[in-house]
Amino acid sequence: MVTHKKKPIQAFHVVEDGHVTSPKGFTAGGVHTGLRKAVLDFGWIHSEIPATAAGVYTLNSFQAAPLKLTKRHVDKIRKIQTIVVNSSNANSCTGEDGMKKAQATVELTAKEKNIDEHLVAVASTGIIGVPLPFGPIKKGISYLNDPLYQKVTNFERAILTTDIETKHVAVELEIDSKTITIGGAAKGSGMIHPNMATMLAFITTDAAVDNESLEYALKSATNRTFNMVTVDGDSSTNDMVLALANGIQENLLLTKTHPQWNEFLAGFQYVCEKLAKAIARDGEGATKLIEVEVLGAKTVKAAQAVAKSVVSSNLVKAAMYGSDANWGRIISAIGYSNQKIEPERVEISIGDTIVVEKGVGIPFDEAAVILTLVKDEVKLSIDLQQGSRSAKAWGCDLTYDYIRINSSYRL
Amino acid sequence: MVTHKKKPIQAFHVVEDGHVTSPKGFTAGGVHTGLRKAVLDFGWIHSEIPATAAGVYTLNSFQAAPLKLTKRHVDKIRKIQTIVVNSSNANSCTGEDGMKKAQATVELTAKEKNIDEHLVAVASTGIIGVPLPFGPIKKGISYLNDPLYQKVTNFERAILTTDIETKHVAVELEIDSKTITIGGAAKGSGMIHPNMATMLAFITTDAAVDNESLEYALKSATNRTFNMVTVDGDSSTNDMVLALANGIQENLLLTKTHPQWNEFLAGFQYVCEKLAKAIARDGEGATKLIEVEVLGAKTVKAAQAVAKSVVSSNLVKAAMYGSDANWGRIISAIGYSNQKIEPERVEISIGDTIVVEKGVGIPFDEAAVILTLVKDEVKLSIDLQQGSRSAKAWGCDLTYDYIRINSSYRL
Repeated sequence: MVTHKKKPIQAFHVVEDGHVTSPKGFTAGGVHTGLRKAVLDFGWIHSEIPATAAGVYTLNSFQAAPLKLTKRHVDKIRKIQTIVVNSSNANSCTGEDGMKKAQATVELTAKEKNIDEHLVAVASTGIIGVPLPFGPIKKGISYLNDPLYQKVTNFERAILTTDIETKHVAVELEIDSKTITIGGAAKGSGMIHPNMATMLAFITTDAAVDNESLEYALKSATNRTFNMVTVDGDSSTNDMVLALANGIQENLLLTKTHPQWNEFLAGFQYVCEKLAKAIARDGEGATKLIEVEVLGAKTVKAAQAVAKSVVSSNLVKAAMYGSDANWGRIISAIGYSNQKIEPERVEISIGDTIVVEKGVGIPFDEAAVILTLVKDEVKLSIDLQQGSRSAKAWGCDLTYDYIRINSSYRL
Repeated sequence: MVTHKKKPIQAFHVVEDGHVTSPKGFTAGGVHTGLRKAVLDFGWIHSEIPATAAGVYTLNSFQAAPLKLTKRHVDKIRKIQTIVVNSSNANSCTGEDGMKKAQATVELTAKEKNIDEHLVAVASTGIIGVPLPFGPIKKGISYLNDPLYQKVTNFERAILTTDIETKHVAVELEIDSKTITIGGAAKGSGMIHPNMATMLAFITTDAAVDNESLEYALKSATNRTFNMVTVDGDSSTNDMVLALANGIQENLLLTKTHPQWNEFLAGFQYVCEKLAKAIARDGEGATKLIEVEVLGAKTVKAAQAVAKSVVSSNLVKAAMYGSDANWGRIISAIGYSNQKIEPERVEISIGDTIVVEKGVGIPFDEAAVILTLVKDEVKLSIDLQQGSRSAKAWGCDLTYDYIRINSSYRL
């Protein structure tokens, strides 16, 4: 198989058990406020000093109140110091009342932390269209400075809805002879309670990063990672990724012209990719992670479109659940991706086994392929043989549990 | 609720137990050839005289051999006289061999029926990527003139893969004081054997229709009916709709300037809609038909995009399976349809019950809505309140059976 991989610049190394608090100057915590029955439901990240901030937000027309407010605050002076997050209620499609409560959350948080309101970001995830109970939120805010609850694992638990696993990572690298760290935490889309479909991710770093460059890094990494994940094709009203850079390590301000910019970018992207894959793996009802790599495309956009088409196909996802080497479904999903495909060039591999060459199925060792498919990580490779661009997308299989979870009545 | 419905011109009436052979001059039949184990697997439609023909074909880049050949024949002089169809094998992604066998099917059919080759159309549905066994095809063709097998119900059965029900309809109307009839048959996407995902539909009429006008009628009806059906979002390499008009009733040639053109169009569209809904209802594992109507859109295209986004959402489909009045998922799917939605205007009804007004949930009688949702036809209405255009889309619920069917190993 012709490969077109570029070796990434990997100056970073992965921090064992890394978190959003691995970078210097960040604390995080979480508490139980009563929004959910017996589990943590309110969390926060706080930076000692205001951090340069960048955000990417859902493209869903129905943007939730906390998301709108956070965007306004990030845009103000591109600084955020405290992020508060609640799970259980998305405060979405809640009209005027929702906006007032998001605003009140910000006001109380700013007061408790003694900072300007526009330095506060707020995120919510949970049921859509139900008024946010404000008593628990108020209670949660009262813990913001309580030393008992400053535990990053509390934060990571508090932002989950029905995700099974917490999702966190950190990497370290040397920039201008300073050790800088990039950390991340995320929640995915578990929806045992219907309407809960939000992806939230938070990236922190103690590097000094120029605000436009941070925004560029976030957008570019998001396009290659979070935006390449699909659990069920539904994108939520509350999806948001926030990045904070507090600059405590006092490196020379990172911009695109900094000689180590690409090293920083590679570390930043690794953190995002790790979280994105964790979200896919923990999709509702999922038993395995599916990675689709498309090689040999004319453009990255075309590669991404094909990869997403395949990883989003219900038929492919159901076949993966059944460990079925069903390349006809893969080829069909490539074909309807709306890209200019030359069928007679396409090559498809399942794991390391080539199953389609020049657009036509070839004999292969079915037993060996099934052994690949029963693993909890499955890789599908598609070589379009039209150019040198590539992309990856991640998803999960479609299972009985997905139906069980999503057909259940609301509580 | 503001409604924007235009009353359609309905000069036609529905023929009881109507078929593709209800129009004069058409015969159809089907036999068992051995492609499938014990059921009919080869069928045909034949017109006494060459009929004006129009086709619409899958946009999937991987077009199957029979589809390419049929398109070439239809384009030649816009006449088709005999259509042969096999199920069980799609003759898709089969390279040179596939094209040769499609060509040989045409040659033998033309010889058997004593007509020109370019008057023969050929369609296949079934597994992708497996060489077409030609012995059975040859055997099937040998029955084309056998009076024992000229039974339209045989045809309707022979084209099915794992569809449960045959799908057929006919309407009659007066044009120029002649009674003309429009009939139709279709198969949907049942895929117990993986890779079988083809939608085929055949429309016949004994009206005289100008070839460009027939093409217009077919494209316009397909856009509003077959293209608005989704079972699982996967579109096949073999999808095709063919329309044949043999003109035996000797009405004045129907063109867009004929005073009764709109009456013909309404009848034609009814036939297509009936078949499209039957396909949705008979989707894999489906327990109910879901109709999504979008009103108050600025353009038909926007209305269609929103309707398709909602009816394609796995979350909406799973909620419908669970008879869950889960409007948060509907609103989310409206929001990510890539249309310019004004959230504060949107109204959503489940059955006759309004559940969202001005983009915000309102109290409703949940018990009454559940009674609506447990029926085997569910209607969701969305009023965007931005204009006067509307569209409908049809789909089915997402069920355990869908997973069972699609995760099973290939035979």
